[in-house]
Amino acid sequence: MIPARGSERSRTQRLGTKAIVATCDTGAMTAPASASLDRNQTIVTLDMEGVLVPEIWIAVAERTGIDALRRTTREEPDYDVLMRYRLALLAEHGLTLSLIQDVIAGLEPLPGAAEFVAELRQRTQVVILSDTFEQFAAPLMRQLGMPTILCHRLVVHDDEITDYRIRIDDPKRRAVQAFQGLNYKVIAAGDSYNDTTMLLEANAGFLFHAPDNVKGEFPQLPAHEEFDDLLAAITAELG
Amino acid sequence: MIPARGSERSRTQRLGTKAIVATCDTGAMTAPASASLDRNQTIVTLDMEGVLVPEIWIAVAERTGIDALRRTTREEPDYDVLMRYRLALLAEHGLTLSLIQDVIAGLEPLPGAAEFVAELRQRTQVVILSDTFEQFAAPLMRQLGMPTILCHRLVVHDDEITDYRIRIDDPKRRAVQAFQGLNYKVIAAGDSYNDTTMLLEANAGFLFHAPDNVKGEFPQLPAHEEFDDLLAAITAELG
Repeated sequence: MIPARGSERSRTQRLGTKAIVATCDTGAMTAPASASLDRNQTIVTLDMEGVLVPEIWIAVAERTGIDALRRTTREEPDYDVLMRYRLALLAEHGLTLSLIQDVIAGLEPLPGAAEFVAELRQRTQVVILSDTFEQFAAPLMRQLGMPTILCHRLVVHDDEITDYRIRIDDPKRRAVQAFQGLNYKVIAAGDSYNDTTMLLEANAGFLFHAPDNVKGEFPQLPAHEEFDDLLAAITAELG
Repeated sequence: MIPARGSERSRTQRLGTKAIVATCDTGAMTAPASASLDRNQTIVTLDMEGVLVPEIWIAVAERTGIDALRRTTREEPDYDVLMRYRLALLAEHGLTLSLIQDVIAGLEPLPGAAEFVAELRQRTQVVILSDTFEQFAAPLMRQLGMPTILCHRLVVHDDEITDYRIRIDDPKRRAVQAFQGLNYKVIAAGDSYNDTTMLLEANAGFLFHAPDNVKGEFPQLPAHEEFDDLLAAITAELG
């Protein structure tokens, strides 16, 4: 459990703008004087790859037999260089978006992931926060019951992936801050470095399926390996 | 189509904080210099009652035969007075939450609503913004394919609804602003006064099933009556 101070701050900042917003109010719901604001409604934000589904590029490498697609940010820390290398490989091998989507559609969520998401959505709101692209995520979201996902997008012309677009910097932490600004308590789970700003910003953050080096660097984040344990830990945080 | 100026402003304000966020960055995705930010990813925000499902309190009044529950903000403009009147009626008639949830579970989405939501979710992300309560919305969300819903919450003890909580003031417009702050283009649809701040804040806002007085007061908001027309209008706004 992360101390809520950070998020309380950002929440207070936003509540501070309430009066300004209210002056522009034209019939929109405003909190009655006698009804205090509910600070216990929750949203759970989950990373996708590694937590709910396999790593997409690794899977595409395996299904297509193009080992070069296995390269990750571990080997190439410059994400832009890595992505352009990947897009060049796709073009070189004539891999269209629809072909890759077929490969991705053939992937299955990790064992227990779909049941975990379904059970969690019976208890609270769940939003997937991912650094993948909308076109890659779509076939996987269908297998996970179509939860909302906030991610990035590929630029596609005639089924050819020509470029990619990042929606915004540090998107996962910004999404947590945005939900906190809407007065939600945010509970987050993820497996890797690009999740840690989200996990630390959340009112409660959990590592799931995280490699030892990430666990070692972020000992303040409780780490779980089984969906049942993560579900129990998240449920304990629900208002 | 609402001019995007307002939303561009709020977007710029948030992008202005990017540098600060980036300095705290520990491995989170950042936009490569050569990849411009995508300003065309979209989220559609939809009102629930009157747009996708019947008015819940009216339906509860009909199913329970308690006509007094038909009173709306038209007769009682003070929302808090109205809600406490409703909660008193529920207590007086011994209507528990589970009983009301059974009534609500018996409601059906408006004809074509489930198909509309399903089709829209094939094209972009969809979030329901409602002034109802989580406990009332749950049975309806299941019939609509479990889209994410941001609303309020009832206080319940031993299945008795003892109070209610408003999550935040002007929640629908604030949600639109929050998604715009995450660099989404927001397209919104709603039917009544409490939707107008959302519709005017959105990059594109549409009235749907709106009464004539609302249409008359907000001529700048295109009004539709059929799901096919709304789907076409929203699709035309997708990047």
